[in-house]
Amino acid sequence: MQFLTEKDIDYIAIGAAILGSGGGGDPYIGKLMAKQAIKEHGPVKFIKAGDVPDDALIIPSAMMGAPAVMIEKLPNGSEPAASFQSLEAYLGKKAYATISIEAGGINSCIPIYTAACLGIPLVDCDGMGRAFPELPMTTFSVSGVSSTPMVLCDEKGNKILLETIDNAWSETLARTATVAMGLSSMIAIYCLTGKQLKDYAVKGTISQARAIGEKIVESNKSKTNPIQSILDITNGYQLFEGKIIDVQRDLTTGFVRGNVTIEGTDVDKGSTFSLDFQNENLLGMKDGKPAAITPDLITLLDREKGFPITTENIKYGQRVIVLGMPCDPFWRTEAGLKQVGPRYFKYDVDYVPIEELARESGK
Amino acid sequence: MQFLTEKDIDYIAIGAAILGSGGGGDPYIGKLMAKQAIKEHGPVKFIKAGDVPDDALIIPSAMMGAPAVMIEKLPNGSEPAASFQSLEAYLGKKAYATISIEAGGINSCIPIYTAACLGIPLVDCDGMGRAFPELPMTTFSVSGVSSTPMVLCDEKGNKILLETIDNAWSETLARTATVAMGLSSMIAIYCLTGKQLKDYAVKGTISQARAIGEKIVESNKSKTNPIQSILDITNGYQLFEGKIIDVQRDLTTGFVRGNVTIEGTDVDKGSTFSLDFQNENLLGMKDGKPAAITPDLITLLDREKGFPITTENIKYGQRVIVLGMPCDPFWRTEAGLKQVGPRYFKYDVDYVPIEELARESGK
Repeated sequence: MQFLTEKDIDYIAIGAAILGSGGGGDPYIGKLMAKQAIKEHGPVKFIKAGDVPDDALIIPSAMMGAPAVMIEKLPNGSEPAASFQSLEAYLGKKAYATISIEAGGINSCIPIYTAACLGIPLVDCDGMGRAFPELPMTTFSVSGVSSTPMVLCDEKGNKILLETIDNAWSETLARTATVAMGLSSMIAIYCLTGKQLKDYAVKGTISQARAIGEKIVESNKSKTNPIQSILDITNGYQLFEGKIIDVQRDLTTGFVRGNVTIEGTDVDKGSTFSLDFQNENLLGMKDGKPAAITPDLITLLDREKGFPITTENIKYGQRVIVLGMPCDPFWRTEAGLKQVGPRYFKYDVDYVPIEELARESGK
Repeated sequence: MQFLTEKDIDYIAIGAAILGSGGGGDPYIGKLMAKQAIKEHGPVKFIKAGDVPDDALIIPSAMMGAPAVMIEKLPNGSEPAASFQSLEAYLGKKAYATISIEAGGINSCIPIYTAACLGIPLVDCDGMGRAFPELPMTTFSVSGVSSTPMVLCDEKGNKILLETIDNAWSETLARTATVAMGLSSMIAIYCLTGKQLKDYAVKGTISQARAIGEKIVESNKSKTNPIQSILDITNGYQLFEGKIIDVQRDLTTGFVRGNVTIEGTDVDKGSTFSLDFQNENLLGMKDGKPAAITPDLITLLDREKGFPITTENIKYGQRVIVLGMPCDPFWRTEAGLKQVGPRYFKYDVDYVPIEELARESGK
């Protein structure tokens, strides 16, 4: 039996923000919450998907909404457990454990917070292997699991329980509710059996995030460059190096939609990189040609220290490295691409795996 | 013990649309639903508020949203019972009876439909004594009763349960959900004890609606004018007679907001009447001076037959009579006017009871 301690939270928050492909929220708030809960309630049991009984109830715990808002509209701390326990009460059954719905900054930490508060284990897996902007974009949904019953709670004390006819309706109704609640909410969603968890979850993402985060922290202590270690752990590619010269953002739909333009420096001097995001980074173009395409992961790192920069923290003038990493093979299936491929997000490009794009560009 | 039969539905639908002050929806759809349910399940028990035990559970049943939409987006018929029974299941208690949340066209009929489908009585009362556009505009809310837990269902099969911190949040969250559901939903809301019902409801509105409707139908049979009978039953005033020369409407917020201009004919030749509405008629001005002010009732009648014209059915060229009727005394208190008076709706006028306005204008 492993346990997650306060130190692990630092690592996981950093690593998950890298896997989060720019999304999943700034880990800062989630990290503080999870560390405080561990301080108060003790370390969190950290188990493998294989350890979960087939008939156990698993309830993922997450934050929904525009991550940028969470920086100013802080949770009151009771919402994650409130939504989780409301769903338990509705189902008339206690949950065996919780998981991350996505590997992303705040949403790697919220389930640890919930697990600590409720004294239940966290399972080492998630429903995306990265972060994505919409509720149906989980391996669970594409495998036929209903997102509802789900519960949303806000920091004021309002609570909403949804039962929908499909996960697209969950996205519509939960999104409008989240916008009305002030652009963020805490949710309990995608109730799973242990069997479904074992069959459909992306396994090992939380320990992978921890390994990445640990490398970055250690490299900073030893003044070495962490980039190569991250590429090794994730089978990734350094796509670009440069300086941010423009950022466009729009929050009105409950997402952070936007684009960032990076002017090449060093090895990429003379080139330009354009990155489109909708909470998460979705399409990276180097000099007008695709360099990485959703569902593959695209993450901006601070060039000096290797820390991830989530989409709401992108600023003019930042020196960055763009990483590209292959997604879980599940997303490269026809059903996967239909839900999270470039055409879903209205980009007029076909998906090409990052390995092929890298080979073509001679990386 | 009284029963409501198919014939009563015709009368109630007409009368409630007159009490509805232009709102509460075109009774047509609700009438068809209620009559069909009575045909299928038999007459509905019709009881007095005084007959309800103090500790009984009463759940009002209603339609929420823009009435104009209901004409095209028909209910599938299962939503009223679905929302009602979901709320019973959530509370773990069966309801003793249902009531109308408002006296208005469709919302006088929906509870009869629900009562018929579920085999429970309808109580002769409502929560407004007229119709109003927003959830907190009930005598229950102003008396401190929570609108939640409440359930919303749409015709597609989506279901939402709300628990809010106050009734203003219920309005915000239920309204955005209703808009997302396609601008209309069926709701179960304002769970009451029998004691609360007896203390706070406006009593006798359904039988008053029936009496008004019966007068209009009978007058049409005997080719006599029903206006005076309506004025007698409601203590009302004929405010204006004329022809509609302009209608403005906007549906985007989930309400029907608008204004109608009426050019005087007959006794009002040379005068102009302007009527503002937000689902319901709220402010009537004759030649620039207030003639009736919310919460007093303002209703347009077809000049020939005396049938009510709800706001979504107002059309250019209609020959109409404008009726004004005093509201329930509850709304004339400071707390009542704060919730439904003219200043709440952003009109820069003070409330003056219709009796005084009539006296001033010499009616």
